[in-house]
Amino acid sequence: MSKSPTTYADLADPQARPRYVGITTFFRAPYADTLTESDVGLIGVPFDGGVTNRSGTRHGPRAVREQSALLRRINAATGVAPFAQARVRDLGDCWIERPFELAGALDEIAAFYRAVAASGVTPVSVGGDHSISLPILRALGAERPVGMIHIDAHCDTGDDYLGSRLHHGAPFRRAVEAGALDPRRVIQIGVRGTTNDPDMWGFSLRSGMRVLDMDEFDDKGWRHAAEEARRVVGEGPAYLSFDIDSLDPAEAPGTGTPEAGGIRALHAIRLLRALRGVDVVGADLVEVSPPFDAGTITAFNAASILFEILCLAVEARARRG
Amino acid sequence: MSKSPTTYADLADPQARPRYVGITTFFRAPYADTLTESDVGLIGVPFDGGVTNRSGTRHGPRAVREQSALLRRINAATGVAPFAQARVRDLGDCWIERPFELAGALDEIAAFYRAVAASGVTPVSVGGDHSISLPILRALGAERPVGMIHIDAHCDTGDDYLGSRLHHGAPFRRAVEAGALDPRRVIQIGVRGTTNDPDMWGFSLRSGMRVLDMDEFDDKGWRHAAEEARRVVGEGPAYLSFDIDSLDPAEAPGTGTPEAGGIRALHAIRLLRALRGVDVVGADLVEVSPPFDAGTITAFNAASILFEILCLAVEARARRG
Amino acid sequence: MSKSPTTYADLADPQARPRYVGITTFFRAPYADTLTESDVGLIGVPFDGGVTNRSGTRHGPRAVREQSALLRRINAATGVAPFAQARVRDLGDCWIERPFELAGALDEIAAFYRAVAASGVTPVSVGGDHSISLPILRALGAERPVGMIHIDAHCDTGDDYLGSRLHHGAPFRRAVEAGALDPRRVIQIGVRGTTNDPDMWGFSLRSGMRVLDMDEFDDKGWRHAAEEARRVVGEGPAYLSFDIDSLDPAEAPGTGTPEAGGIRALHAIRLLRALRGVDVVGADLVEVSPPFDAGTITAFNAASILFEILCLAVEARARRG
Amino acid sequence: MSKSPTTYADLADPQARPRYVGITTFFRAPYADTLTESDVGLIGVPFDGGVTNRSGTRHGPRAVREQSALLRRINAATGVAPFAQARVRDLGDCWIERPFELAGALDEIAAFYRAVAASGVTPVSVGGDHSISLPILRALGAERPVGMIHIDAHCDTGDDYLGSRLHHGAPFRRAVEAGALDPRRVIQIGVRGTTNDPDMWGFSLRSGMRVLDMDEFDDKGWRHAAEEARRVVGEGPAYLSFDIDSLDPAEAPGTGTPEAGGIRALHAIRLLRALRGVDVVGADLVEVSPPFDAGTITAFNAASILFEILCLAVEARARRG
Amino acid sequence: MSKSPTTYADLADPQARPRYVGITTFFRAPYADTLTESDVGLIGVPFDGGVTNRSGTRHGPRAVREQSALLRRINAATGVAPFAQARVRDLGDCWIERPFELAGALDEIAAFYRAVAASGVTPVSVGGDHSISLPILRALGAERPVGMIHIDAHCDTGDDYLGSRLHHGAPFRRAVEAGALDPRRVIQIGVRGTTNDPDMWGFSLRSGMRVLDMDEFDDKGWRHAAEEARRVVGEGPAYLSFDIDSLDPAEAPGTGTPEAGGIRALHAIRLLRALRGVDVVGADLVEVSPPFDAGTITAFNAASILFEILCLAVEARARRG
Amino acid sequence: MSKSPTTYADLADPQARPRYVGITTFFRAPYADTLTESDVGLIGVPFDGGVTNRSGTRHGPRAVREQSALLRRINAATGVAPFAQARVRDLGDCWIERPFELAGALDEIAAFYRAVAASGVTPVSVGGDHSISLPILRALGAERPVGMIHIDAHCDTGDDYLGSRLHHGAPFRRAVEAGALDPRRVIQIGVRGTTNDPDMWGFSLRSGMRVLDMDEFDDKGWRHAAEEARRVVGEGPAYLSFDIDSLDPAEAPGTGTPEAGGIRALHAIRLLRALRGVDVVGADLVEVSPPFDAGTITAFNAASILFEILCLAVEARARRG
Repeated sequence: MSKSPTTYADLADPQARPRYVGITTFFRAPYADTLTESDVGLIGVPFDGGVTNRSGTRHGPRAVREQSALLRRINAATGVAPFAQARVRDLGDCWIERPFELAGALDEIAAFYRAVAASGVTPVSVGGDHSISLPILRALGAERPVGMIHIDAHCDTGDDYLGSRLHHGAPFRRAVEAGALDPRRVIQIGVRGTTNDPDMWGFSLRSGMRVLDMDEFDDKGWRHAAEEARRVVGEGPAYLSFDIDSLDPAEAPGTGTPEAGGIRALHAIRLLRALRGVDVVGADLVEVSPPFDAGTITAFNAASILFEILCLAVEARARRG
Repeated sequence: MSKSPTTYADLADPQARPRYVGITTFFRAPYADTLTESDVGLIGVPFDGGVTNRSGTRHGPRAVREQSALLRRINAATGVAPFAQARVRDLGDCWIERPFELAGALDEIAAFYRAVAASGVTPVSVGGDHSISLPILRALGAERPVGMIHIDAHCDTGDDYLGSRLHHGAPFRRAVEAGALDPRRVIQIGVRGTTNDPDMWGFSLRSGMRVLDMDEFDDKGWRHAAEEARRVVGEGPAYLSFDIDSLDPAEAPGTGTPEAGGIRALHAIRLLRALRGVDVVGADLVEVSPPFDAGTITAFNAASILFEILCLAVEARARRG
Repeated sequence: MSKSPTTYADLADPQARPRYVGITTFFRAPYADTLTESDVGLIGVPFDGGVTNRSGTRHGPRAVREQSALLRRINAATGVAPFAQARVRDLGDCWIERPFELAGALDEIAAFYRAVAASGVTPVSVGGDHSISLPILRALGAERPVGMIHIDAHCDTGDDYLGSRLHHGAPFRRAVEAGALDPRRVIQIGVRGTTNDPDMWGFSLRSGMRVLDMDEFDDKGWRHAAEEARRVVGEGPAYLSFDIDSLDPAEAPGTGTPEAGGIRALHAIRLLRALRGVDVVGADLVEVSPPFDAGTITAFNAASILFEILCLAVEARARRG
Repeated sequence: MSKSPTTYADLADPQARPRYVGITTFFRAPYADTLTESDVGLIGVPFDGGVTNRSGTRHGPRAVREQSALLRRINAATGVAPFAQARVRDLGDCWIERPFELAGALDEIAAFYRAVAASGVTPVSVGGDHSISLPILRALGAERPVGMIHIDAHCDTGDDYLGSRLHHGAPFRRAVEAGALDPRRVIQIGVRGTTNDPDMWGFSLRSGMRVLDMDEFDDKGWRHAAEEARRVVGEGPAYLSFDIDSLDPAEAPGTGTPEAGGIRALHAIRLLRALRGVDVVGADLVEVSPPFDAGTITAFNAASILFEILCLAVEARARRG
Repeated sequence: MSKSPTTYADLADPQARPRYVGITTFFRAPYADTLTESDVGLIGVPFDGGVTNRSGTRHGPRAVREQSALLRRINAATGVAPFAQARVRDLGDCWIERPFELAGALDEIAAFYRAVAASGVTPVSVGGDHSISLPILRALGAERPVGMIHIDAHCDTGDDYLGSRLHHGAPFRRAVEAGALDPRRVIQIGVRGTTNDPDMWGFSLRSGMRVLDMDEFDDKGWRHAAEEARRVVGEGPAYLSFDIDSLDPAEAPGTGTPEAGGIRALHAIRLLRALRGVDVVGADLVEVSPPFDAGTITAFNAASILFEILCLAVEARARRG
Repeated sequence: MSKSPTTYADLADPQARPRYVGITTFFRAPYADTLTESDVGLIGVPFDGGVTNRSGTRHGPRAVREQSALLRRINAATGVAPFAQARVRDLGDCWIERPFELAGALDEIAAFYRAVAASGVTPVSVGGDHSISLPILRALGAERPVGMIHIDAHCDTGDDYLGSRLHHGAPFRRAVEAGALDPRRVIQIGVRGTTNDPDMWGFSLRSGMRVLDMDEFDDKGWRHAAEEARRVVGEGPAYLSFDIDSLDPAEAPGTGTPEAGGIRALHAIRLLRALRGVDVVGADLVEVSPPFDAGTITAFNAASILFEILCLAVEARARRG
């Protein structure tokens, strides 16, 4: 080995510098304000206008950016080096000009993501509340419905609430209705908790989604969940939506609607690694609410999970050529 | 004195019990779900849909209720005993059925307060963001415009923002436009900070409001501010609006739009006590955002200030007979 | 289904409203200050006079009430709808008039619970420290000793300490001695940690209690623990006592005497659900100490566990007719 | 200057070492477990059995010890070098064998302080709640009543409460009754807040104490307070009791019974420095409750104030010869 | 006014957008990685290798950037609009390749700032600990010594400590020795606290610096301090160094060496505004240590003060033409 | 049993007293400032000069001391009573006179530990960052290399970084090079996370260390890890190094370089208990960084793990006679 990599001769690379240094982009990746130089784009969506209880996820992107500085360039478990294998950029935030009106705000997000989709960039988004997944799916599934691996404490296939068809508990019902999501290619992992309605998540079951609830996950483990996920989404294009409230509240207290007894970050990460090969065409990580965090554990675990998601997106893109 | 009051023979009164005991109403006052048994009603308005930056004030009423349990029955400085001098009740929360639409939400609040106004109860409200003051004023000033003593780091007389005429930086411009507020009988105390617009608070000046900014307050003190307030509002009915961000951020970090260099709680309290005699027909304390609090200092100071406001409201009502 | 329940036409029910709204009772259930309208009563016991190290559990009831607002009406895992299946009320706090004397304070609690027992209400209590279980058991086991499922990091069958027979490490020894608890129908789950005395928990073993310690729980799992619990308590009346320090300190830091390496909330909840059919005649959840909490994870997990306990109590009561 | 003191050739002195180093005694002073080698003794009294609301001051001594490590050897404002001018030792904690019984616990404290008094050591104590001042005064004022400079948000001259003559709101009434405190040589500075009883602090006035309330302090300043204090206590022996809740809650949130609008630490310190010459025969700093602290600001300010008190005690002792 | 500025037609400007949006640069100013497009450069110096007690200021720049997002474009008190009046850029961080060696690290900083000085950019730096001021002054004062307005709880003119001539308590002695700082044009404001050495700050006095300590500041106020500062530094080039520990610890707990009883942020800001006209050729704000912050009050106050410093630097530069 | 131990007649023993009482030494063990009266010495090493990212471990020893007060005298799981079975003392801190120079600082530590080794005391150290293990191993392995059980998220066998051969990511490479550590008798358990270098931990593999990474640990459990550890280190002298970042970040957030998805404290403790019989000749617990802790969970878990390590060291020493 003529030049030891551990001497960090490459300190010119901001990602190799001490991690407390520099402007906080996602993973200290380069910032880009155009779509032309990226293969995979990390995008913040600081919007929480769809929340029905505790808000604060508008601050999620910044908190995840800050904690993501603790991550490094290579996934030691899989060997994936996302920043070397693709042009990964922090594309900044998809922000909303008129946040006071929910339907219009979601339309603004959809317009942004249509531009992203048109550019060919694979978007990996950080919310924001889960309502943002609807406009993203509208853009990504505009031509044909996508499948989805959805990791969450809730199915988010509810109906109207508080006078609104749109809110963070309903995006996937609306996405199916809009023809952007194929329910038979959807799996929902980690679902649990209390409901106000005995039929709260009935749409999931009736539309053909596979609901792998927390009891099943706890009994059968992450390998089983990964196998089911691969079986359900198959070879086609798949969206990956990770709601941080799928994690146990001790590992992710900073979220708006926690449910006791969730997935450990360890197993969420192992599950994600086992999804290599899925054709991930877009992904999001949502519901990180920094004002409710204790320390920064939620944002840190979120950043760690985001890194795994990024690796999946980079590899999927490489496979598509 | 045959029976020492310090033996608390009156422990039957929940307010005399140890302060960590019991359901948390405002000041441990009785809860009432009708308007018929109150003279002065403490009302939570857990709404933060008008916020332009950091949210969280929807949790303000609960946090202030909890901290208000630390207060006792008598104002030792003035001798006022509000719960003995009037029927003071916690009327619970004015909640919003359709929170996702700002204009409609404010209309719901206005409808609630029209009922309060019709009942003759003096409302003392706890926000919530400052946008709630507009519908409250619409109800209280429906017949004739009221004056106002407004203590705040911001004038909140801004214009449209982010596509909306309604938001927490504009209630008092809209209230003037609606004929509910008489700008010549308005004083704004504690204003400071940065702006994005050189004319941000120009409406205040042009409409005739008295702006007593933080420099003047710091130079001339709370007695001067109180004198000016009494001069400006005069004998007529006056609304009192206290934005917790008027306090110094060290004393009120838990708020959405802090501005460095504010009023000390000590002087805010002394200012309020010096307003005895003003004809307070309604009041609010807004912008307490518990998720951004450090410890509970903001909610505690808010509860302490609310107690002073309550004393003013009780005395004003007694004077009106 | 002519009228979709997910539209929440029933927003008249406070429990269906947004969860940040309203006075904080347990699970936003109705408050009642008499015993006559309840089947199951949720009762706070804000007393920590029996603590030997870190105090603060006097603030436990309020913190659990606040976090319990995050829960909803239906147990999605079991379908139990406690508020629909029984008259569940928040009965407020059992407070102590003379808290400075431990023995007398416990007598006050016993008197309160004798009234509860006489009324036929099933009490589900929230402490407070574990010393409160003794007077509750004295009331509930007055006629014949009850069995007990006790989930805790400690056996709490110690002897005198610091000059007192009564403290939070001894209630169950005293309850056996008082004839209120049948040790052969007692199981203690989750016990672990350091001791100052090699015979610290010897009373448990000598009196015939089944001690299922943390190592056994970790090796054999929650199903095994549930089976053992059902075997030990059998068909007879059983008390359920859940000390939050049974959970791992990462999931319940807000407690006075944490012990490293405990139960995950996920498995505590699954264990509780597996106890359906046990004749629960009363229950408590104790040792939540908010001043030592990090964020509100302890109180949140406690509220989630309390919900499961409530479901058990409601079902048991229904079975008794 | 042949040998620069700033080179810290004296690093052999633990107090000169980096402040994050070493066992945490008060001000990193030597620990002593006998009374024979000290002139002034720093003593923790980790007892909060006299508290009527929020507890936690049993942890006060440890928290103040830890923060006191941030202080150095010399009072730059006055030039006093307490550790050089007297034998100052950390005498550890006065702990209570039977903490569950309030009267007996206070008797244990009194016995401890009688030994201290007999040894000639000047005690500077750190509570614990304010009930500890009574047994300390009983010991120090056993032969003749002492005067007192009492800085506090409360007079602590209340009567029975919750069935007890002894609690943290009554020590000074009891001390007067016991003949240990001369009320005509007592000044109480910083009093404010709400009361449950119009005559709450009537004993102070009737017995001849000088009550200099917060309004007077704010209007006339620390120099006036210091002059009044010197006038009231005169030349005779004086006890100094500093309740941390005299400070503004923003500067001392970690206390059980905060009152809004208090003294700034800056002015408390200047007030104390202006008391040089008073014959301080003992002192305490009480009511630091770490579980309620935000960060460590309360304990830090307490340690800073304790340093000033220590300087007063050292100088007073030197004057007595 | 044909186009209302309050409608924010200029939302294209990132600084006009909602403040929770976007990559966090200082004040959301544009990021630049060259020196050629700036008049005034905001520079982070994440280095705390000179700390003698609590570290953590390496995280200061990020925390101040985040909080600075709460500020807006215009100084409402003075009308200064720094971003409109000069090309203000966030130049990112001056990072250190070899942080383990203190002397070399400071040399790296000096080299960076020599490049800044050569470019003509006015540097406004955010530390980092106070040791960074030495290499900055070496660069800015290379040709002739500068004056300095130094606001700090400590003079930072100490001598060797722990075997090192270089540390965060000595930069200004070293700067004088290096001929970069003219002590007769130096004022130090806010000095207070304990020392380990009676001659700790003797160098300041002997070298001719004006030490305006905290007592003088408290007695005579910010206007007096500003007048003295202007008198001392005169017309010549002046550096401005603001150590956040000059503030009261309640307003700036997040710092390594707090001293009780400091300046209020309100008065620090008013002091700074009164320095308009001073020829500020460079400035720093140091010693913000986020790990020790409570909430984010320290970083927020720091950002607010940084804004005032920026305004001074922009105006001074404009005067120089 | 004539005298019940549960009456604590032995309250003369400080470890039997209430746990909130007394000076905070490790486990409230006696403090000793000489090496002559100890068999096993608990030693703080408050040094974090080898850190490459977030610092703060200089405060680790104090925080672990404080939390260790929650532990008691006997290991209930194993029956080991370390303080009864050996003379265990808190030897205070190994502090560094010249902390600004890393190589020299480590030499100071080595000199200290050579004295410890010469005295025959078994050192159980609390860091500080992981760079301290190198000088300790230099002292303990001076005569012949030792084996090591190393529990950590990182192998810490990196090469030069930021211009330094010495830092907290490289101690074990340097120890092997120094002949103090036998790599064929080293096992590293819990390794995971991202790297900047594909060969980051290549030295471990090439030198013959057994790397049992987190995936293997999660798949095969703590019993497997313990068996492997016993197999690898065999009968010879072994050092035990426990980096708190081996734990899951939810259980140990207070550390400088967390890695998601770690070991639960429960299983770390069970693993350690299963190491009884290993010839532990020294041990450390490192990387507790209190400024980054949430609550005190990290220090508490660290203290709990330290207790297990202490038990191992005491038993090993007894076996050696």
